[in-house]
Amino acid sequence: MFTPQPIGFVRSPFRDASAVPKGLNAQHPEEGVLEILREFVPGLTDIEGYSHLIVLWVFDRSDGFDLVITPPSDDRPHGLFSTRSPRRPNPIALTIVELLRRENGSLHVRGVDMLDGTPILDIKPYLSNIPEEKLRRGWLADAEARKG
Amino acid sequence: MFTPQPIGFVRSPFRDASAVPKGLNAQHPEEGVLEILREFVPGLTDIEGYSHLIVLWVFDRSDGFDLVITPPSDDRPHGLFSTRSPRRPNPIALTIVELLRRENGSLHVRGVDMLDGTPILDIKPYLSNIPEEKLRRGWLADAEARKG
Repeated sequence: MFTPQPIGFVRSPFRDASAVPKGLNAQHPEEGVLEILREFVPGLTDIEGYSHLIVLWVFDRSDGFDLVITPPSDDRPHGLFSTRSPRRPNPIALTIVELLRRENGSLHVRGVDMLDGTPILDIKPYLSNIPEEKLRRGWLADAEARKG
Repeated sequence: MFTPQPIGFVRSPFRDASAVPKGLNAQHPEEGVLEILREFVPGLTDIEGYSHLIVLWVFDRSDGFDLVITPPSDDRPHGLFSTRSPRRPNPIALTIVELLRRENGSLHVRGVDMLDGTPILDIKPYLSNIPEEKLRRGWLADAEARKG
């Protein structure tokens, strides 16, 4: 396999997990900064052309996992891989952010749901959507329908 | 950080990287199977309800990285984090697949671009799109326009 190493860290308004909006219809309008380590900054060349980025990061304040859980968006249990729970065999998270502007190694973004100081593993361009009419959202759509 | 561990392995028609379609307009219609290890199978509960899954996996046959590269989709150099190159500081890949059916720990999917035997790190539900009118695709859109 490989040894994970941070390419940078998130600056975010969230100091602890309880402050991050969760559950159905959670919105993430908050702005934050992806601070990329100096040695990796050349890898950001041309990133300004993208409106949205995929950020892979570490749930570094999460520990262990259960395979069946009841997530904040429902009152019924679901398999871990059907959820976005932070407690996973590999504690890797994924967030799509909107790139607002770049200042050298600082990417100012909207849509952060990471805690302040979170290690970043990778950044990839967001390239395309799944056609809306082909997308099914499983138990989450059911949970939304039940809550009206 | 953490120690990556496979939750399963990909069965794919691709035996080596040269066989995987790359570059502009690359299509990935191939079907494959995500074989999840027995110990993690309870974590798949309810996953059948989703049409599309995010698969995080390891570029396990990739080594090292360059921060500025010329990708197969262009004849000009770009920053690594503006590309989907397999040679990255953390060799983690992301593929969106369509879930065709589940047979216990075997997820039959369409859209594989992994090599046969690739280790899987995580599976997450694909939940939503970025509104099409808000999506900008940077140098890739430019490269497409130049090639007509």
